Formats: sequence, structure tokens, C-alpha cells
Amino acid sequence: MRLGRTLFVVGAIVCCVGFSMAFPLLWGLMRGDAGALPMLQAMLTTLLCGGALLLGFRRSSQDSPLGHRDGMAIVSLGWVAAGVCGALPYLFGGVCGTVTDAVFESVSGFTTTGASILTDIEAVPESLLLWRSLTHWLGGMGIIVLSLAILPFLGVGGMQLYKAEAPGPTPDKLKPRIKDTAAILWKVYVGMSALECVLLLLGGMSLFDSLCHTFGTMATGGFSTRNSSVAAYDNAYIYWVITAFMFLAGMNFSLHYRLLSGHAKDIWKDGELRFYATVVLGSTVLIAWNIWGRHYDDAAEALTQSAFQVSSIITTTGFATADFEQWPAFSQMLLVLLMFVGGCAGSTGGGMKVVRILLMLKHCSMELIRLVHPRAVRHVKLGGRNVPPEVLSGVWGFFGLYLFCYVATSLALSAMDLDIVTSFTATLACISNIGPGLGTVGPAENFFHLPAAAKVLLTWCMLLGRLELYTVFILFVPEFWRK
Amino acid sequence: MRLGRTLFVVGAIVCCVGFSMAFPLLWGLMRGDAGALPMLQAMLTTLLCGGALLLGFRRSSQDSPLGHRDGMAIVSLGWVAAGVCGALPYLFGGVCGTVTDAVFESVSGFTTTGASILTDIEAVPESLLLWRSLTHWLGGMGIIVLSLAILPFLGVGGMQLYKAEAPGPTPDKLKPRIKDTAAILWKVYVGMSALECVLLLLGGMSLFDSLCHTFGTMATGGFSTRNSSVAAYDNAYIYWVITAFMFLAGMNFSLHYRLLSGHAKDIWKDGELRFYATVVLGSTVLIAWNIWGRHYDDAAEALTQSAFQVSSIITTTGFATADFEQWPAFSQMLLVLLMFVGGCAGSTGGGMKVVRILLMLKHCSMELIRLVHPRAVRHVKLGGRNVPPEVLSGVWGFFGLYLFCYVATSLALSAMDLDIVTSFTATLACISNIGPGLGTVGPAENFFHLPAAAKVLLTWCMLLGRLELYTVFILFVPEFWRK
Repeated sequence: MRLGRTLFVVGAIVCCVGFSMAFPLLWGLMRGDAGALPMLQAMLTTLLCGGALLLGFRRSSQDSPLGHRDGMAIVSLGWVAAGVCGALPYLFGGVCGTVTDAVFESVSGFTTTGASILTDIEAVPESLLLWRSLTHWLGGMGIIVLSLAILPFLGVGGMQLYKAEAPGPTPDKLKPRIKDTAAILWKVYVGMSALECVLLLLGGMSLFDSLCHTFGTMATGGFSTRNSSVAAYDNAYIYWVITAFMFLAGMNFSLHYRLLSGHAKDIWKDGELRFYATVVLGSTVLIAWNIWGRHYDDAAEALTQSAFQVSSIITTTGFATADFEQWPAFSQMLLVLLMFVGGCAGSTGGGMKVVRILLMLKHCSMELIRLVHPRAVRHVKLGGRNVPPEVLSGVWGFFGLYLFCYVATSLALSAMDLDIVTSFTATLACISNIGPGLGTVGPAENFFHLPAAAKVLLTWCMLLGRLELYTVFILFVPEFWRK
Repeated sequence: MRLGRTLFVVGAIVCCVGFSMAFPLLWGLMRGDAGALPMLQAMLTTLLCGGALLLGFRRSSQDSPLGHRDGMAIVSLGWVAAGVCGALPYLFGGVCGTVTDAVFESVSGFTTTGASILTDIEAVPESLLLWRSLTHWLGGMGIIVLSLAILPFLGVGGMQLYKAEAPGPTPDKLKPRIKDTAAILWKVYVGMSALECVLLLLGGMSLFDSLCHTFGTMATGGFSTRNSSVAAYDNAYIYWVITAFMFLAGMNFSLHYRLLSGHAKDIWKDGELRFYATVVLGSTVLIAWNIWGRHYDDAAEALTQSAFQVSSIITTTGFATADFEQWPAFSQMLLVLLMFVGGCAGSTGGGMKVVRILLMLKHCSMELIRLVHPRAVRHVKLGGRNVPPEVLSGVWGFFGLYLFCYVATSLALSAMDLDIVTSFTATLACISNIGPGLGTVGPAENFFHLPAAAKVLLTWCMLLGRLELYTVFILFVPEFWRK
């Protein structure tokens, strides 16, 4: 570990967070709303902290290049630091009563979770809401690009960092010249965001709402500017625009990159994308069939609602246009199962990731074939190539650790006397970075009423889930800190 | 596949089931109860069917020796045949209204599940109840010994069968001379049953109740002779006797064998046993602490109730002395999690098996270490020996398939408009061969009210769980049936 240089890089991240506060600050000044002053205070405090770290450890920045372990530590500490600094506007603005609440909201933003403790969102000044949605967008960018574009610039070896931070087990699709690729991915992300924003404006949304919902969609975050989430617009066109962009944001961004670099026909060869599309389509049809005639007399409306909720849940966005807790048990269960799946590897989505589920299913069917032919040598294949046993071993290890964290946290919540459904789904909603669960944290409720200890635990879960568990857990392995 | 010889062996199994009906028949004649005639009718019908199979395929019995695949088919078909024949007494005796119900009850018996569709157990004639409990005992014996003692005698290669039938991934502990070992295990099973029966008699239970509860305990089945299960006796001595024997029945029977063959000090070296004991002890203390002062003012009573329920659930027995649906959420959740664990490999318990959970946990922590030292070669160890990667791969494959079946069945139940908790826990209770779940199939309820389609599906789940999934699934792989 090179602690000095690690903290130097964390200082740089904190400064970036501070500078990004300029956008909501300007918005607040322009609109003259009550959030401008707290934004300014937060920005100055954040830049001060970041600057102090940069200055304090400027000598360490000349140390030997950062290694594998430092990369892990930077990712985890950087996310924690961003989460803490991002909480300042809520604290200075008085929209969160306690530090716990403010950090919960901020970490929920940066981890693109979207679980909220705000009970009356519409009463919050616009500039603070814009900051809230912007944390999503920055967090999503962080997952895909920031770590590739900025951190290598600071001398951090690229691929090992990407390995730690990029969601899912297939980070090998990037070009060796990582900065070029990162720049392209950045353009894709910005371009798609701009396109969605324009489409929402055309649907009659205000610029402010369009921006905030775009941030929430592209990062698969889920913070809305309305108390009733996207349902407030009651407009099928807006529903479908957001559905489409949630689906795109849940795709592997290297596929968008390939599409733009002229390899469009390669895309459908991607096994993960095909499986993802099949699951989304299949679930949409099943749920539409289940709610049609029971909750919606019109088949088109049932399909719209089903498609929106399925896309929102599987991509771990968490926007809502319907209170699916009122839907039949089958639809609820299917949505809960999709919460485990999550987006594709290399997307902004959370959860287990589609490719892991796909590999696990393939592995199970291979084991079945092996029982018929005990001596035959079979391999799990993905995209025509054999998957090495170490990768499969890592996937199952991840799955096991994910379930372990999930179960341990759910048990801890139930020990705080939350009911079973709330305990299980609040944990799931946070560790998979979704937002709403079922029970008392359903799509029509929020996380405000939970005890403070539960909020701390769930904040921790959001970070765990966003950083793919190992990146965080490794900090607690004693050997990690040895020379 | 050698279908002729396979069916010949199934015929032999059916005959054994038929002969075993003599015991409840004699009991019924002795007591002069209304169940004697249906038992006689069922016995004759069963023997007729079994005899027809034996005669019809007697020429095939001289075919070449049975192979790996035939063993798999015999195990699955044998269990189905036993389940169907075992349903006859209920049908002839009029205690089950439909064939679905009767087969559900019978398969629940032979798979040692203990889920019941009888709404008034105490109104059923003693001889039929004795048969009901005897199916448990035979099923439990089947899992441990019958397949080792009888099937090899019929020319079926022993070890590959044991591999298919014995629960869990460590079947290598048996001596090569499989018949000798089987005879010893049989003696252990009978001896422990006799001991429990005597201890229950000393506690003031009637001979009939003692026999039935012994059968239910040793097989980790869970059928009781009382509507309120073991709670009817309200006697701490009886509670503790059954708790102790449930714990013993959930242990690997090859450990009992080693104990009796003079290797007592080896036993504690068994990693699975230590983990099993730790989990049971830990859960008992946690739940006792959770319910003490809330449901039970007396600490000793809280401990007794906790120990009984924990042992009953983790060993997948399913006896109840308390309606744990009334307990706090934490206790309920912990019990639900124990439902996944199940007994040790080589016990009569169902579920995932302790050794699989242990291996999965060890694998996860190994993956974590591997991230710190990417180039270090580490192995998962059990009992001081390296676990081969194929075994780990098989364990995860099993886990994946188990979850897949669990999730698919739960979804199907919810599509029949059962609520979420009932759908999830009814499936779990059946696939893990436990008995009671939560919701409308809780420890104070039964499975009678479920729609017929749900009962069929759950019957299938009980077989799947009991035969460790692969044994059944493999019959649906087309390649399995090719030459």
C-alpha cells in the first residue's frame, strides 16, 4: 500500500466532486432559489477538503506507480469521500435532519441507487434537486468512464482499476489505449443523455425535469423531482422514452461504442445482450398478461406499465409509474427476481449482472450433461469462446458473497423489528442499487421511517453493491495492508 | 438404458413396499380399527403390481449388469412407484378425497417431507396413521441404507447408485464392502429408533405415539399423530428427547457408524459436523434471546422452544411445538434461512446439506484471498484435504439448479394466486423436505386448501429435493436415453 499517494488521488476525486457542484449552484443563482447558498457553502467546503488532501500528500504523488491494491483502495475510499461531500448541500440546505439521512441520500445518489429519505421532494429547492440527480449522473459516469479517463491520468494503472470498478466479469472488451476509449464512452454517455433530454422536452416536460430525469435514467439511478416519481406525468410518450433509455443504459456501454465505431452487426452476437433482451421482453409480456384485466382494462396500458416497471427494475433504475405492490403476487415476485438480475456488465446498472446469471445457468446445464457423460470434457461457452474455470469460480464466489451479504443484512434489519418483506426487499433494493422495494419501502413509500441504524447499514449495502463487494471487502482482509 | 431390467428392480421395490404394509395391517387387526381392511386391500394391490413387474421382466433380469444411467432411473422410478403405491391405503380408507391428495400425502411420507393435507389427523384410524409414519421411516432408510443393501443384491453397481441417491457430495466415506456397511448402518438406524421409542415411552407417551414420532424423527420426516403436532404433549422432557434425536438424525450416518466401530475421537475432526453443531447452537441461542421476554417469560422455556424449532427446521423434520409465525421477524427469518441449509450429507435430512453451504462459504473466502494475492495458488480444504475443483463446480451447479427450481416453482404457485410468502415458503418446505412453511402453510396450518395443480407441483418438488435434483432432471435429457 502506498497510502500517501492513494489519499492524493482521493483528494483529486473530492475536488472533482466540488467543481461539479458549480452546475446546480449556477442553476440556483439563475433561478434565485433557496438552494444556491447551501450549494456554495458545500462547494467551498468540499474544495477545501480536496485541496487539503492534494497539498498534504503532494510529495507522495511522486512515489512509485500505484499498484493493484492501491487501485482497490482508491475506488472504495473515493466513493465514500464523494458520498460524504455530496451530503453537504442537503445538510447546509436543511432538507435532511441528520447526518445519517444526508449521507444516505448522497450515497444513494452516487451509487445510482435512488432510495430516498425525502418525504416531500417537491418542497426541496430546484438547485438541491438538481444536485441530487447530478450525483446519479456522476456516479454512473464514474462506473463506466471516470475511472478510465481521470485515474490513469493520475498514474493509476488502468486495467486493474477497471477490473475492480467496472461491473461484471467481462472487462476485456476495451481497447488497450484506455484513454481513447474512455473519451469515446464519455461522448456516448453525454450524447445519449442529450438525446433523451431533447425527447423528454418534446414530450412537454420542463427543462429542469427533463435534465433530472435524464440523469436518473442514464445512470440507472431513479431519483425523480416529483413525489409520485414518473407517474406524475401520466403520459405514455414520456413513459416509453424513459423505458427505452433505461433499457439502453442497462446495456454494456462497450456495445454502444462498437455500434458507433461501425460494428453494428457484431452487437447481436453478444450472448449477454440477447439474454438481457429476452428476459426483458419475456417478463414484460408475462406481467402485462398478469395485470391486464385485473388492474388495467386496456391492453396497451397494461403493456406500457409492465414494460416501464420491468425496465426500471432489471436495470436497477427504480423509477415508478405504478405502485406494483398493488399488482398480483406473480407480477410482484417476478419483479423481485429481476431485482437480483440487474443490468449488463459494463452498464450503469447494479445487481448481480446479466452475464453472471447467464454463466451460472450455462454452468448448471453443463453439470447436468456431465452426469450423463461422466468422462466427456465440456466447457461453458460465451460468445463462441470457452469460459476459463477461474472466471466461473469467481462468478460463483461473487454470487455466494452477494447472497451472504444480502442474508446477513436482512437478518440485521429484522432484528430491528422491521417485518420480513421489508427487511428482505429493503436490503435487496440497496445492495442491487435499485431504490424501491416492497413492504414499507415500496414504490409509493420511502426510507425515511427506518431507524438510523438501518439507514447506516443500508448505506453500507449501497456501497458494497455498487463496488461489487470484493473491492470493499478486501479492505478488511489483514493481508491486504501488509507490504 | 436397460429398461427391462430397470423395471424388474422397480418391481422388487414395489414388492418391498407391499410387504411393509403388513405391520400397520397387523396393528389394525390387533386394535380392530377401521384401517385394517383398506391396509389389506392396498397390500394386495401393491403386491400384485410388484409381482406383475417381476414376472413380466423376469427374463430381462439376466441382462448385462446395470450401469450408471440405469441406477439413476431405478432411483427415480422406484421413489415414484413407492409414492403411488403408498397412496393406496389413504384412498381405500377414504381419508383423502382425491388421488392428488393421497399421492401428495404418500410422497410427502416417502420423501420424509412431512407436509400434510389431512385437516383432522386425530380422526384417522391408527393403522393408517402408523402407515403414514412408517412411510417416513422407510423413506429415510431408503436414503441411507436400502439402496446400499438391497439394490446391490439385485446386481446394481453400488457406488454409482449411492452417488445418485445419498444426499450430499461426500459419499466416499463408506467401506468398499458395501453390504457390510449397509448392514451396520441398518443396525444403527434401528438401534437409535428403538432407543428413542423407549425414551418417549418413559416420558409417558403411548406405544403408538412413541412409534409414530420415532419414525418421524429418525427419518427427519415430521408427520405427527396429533393435530397440534408435538405441542400436544406440552412436556419439556419429550421436547428435549425429540430435539436430541432430530439432531442425531441430521448427522452423517457414517459418523454414527465410525462411533460404533471405535473411532469416537475422529468424529469431531469432521468439518461438516462442527459447522452443523455451531449453526444449531448459534441459531438456538439467537432465537431464544429474541423470543425470551416477548413470547416466553421463562428463559428455560424460551431455550427449549428455540432448540426444538431450530433442530426441527435445520434437519428438515418439521415437527412443531410452537407456532413460530407468531414469533418476531428475526426468528422467523433465521428459521427460513435454516430451511435452505438442511441436514448433513449422508443423513436423512433434506435441503442443500450443511457440507455444501460450508464449501460455498470456504470458496467465497478463498476468492477474496485470491484478489489480494492474484498469483497465489489456494485450495478449498475440508477435513485437512484439498477439495478438487470438479467437486466445487458440482456444488455450485447443484446450488444454481436448486435455486432455479425453487424460483420457478414459487413463480408458478404465485401465478395460481397464492400470496408471496406462501408461494416462497411452501416451495421451500417441499423442495427441502421440511413440511411446514409460513403464510397459509405455516406450522399451525396444512396444505389441504391449495389448488390441485399446486399440490401436483409440490409433490414433484418433494421428489426433486429428495433425489437431489440431478437424479430426476437427468431423465429429461434426451441424450440420457440414447445407447
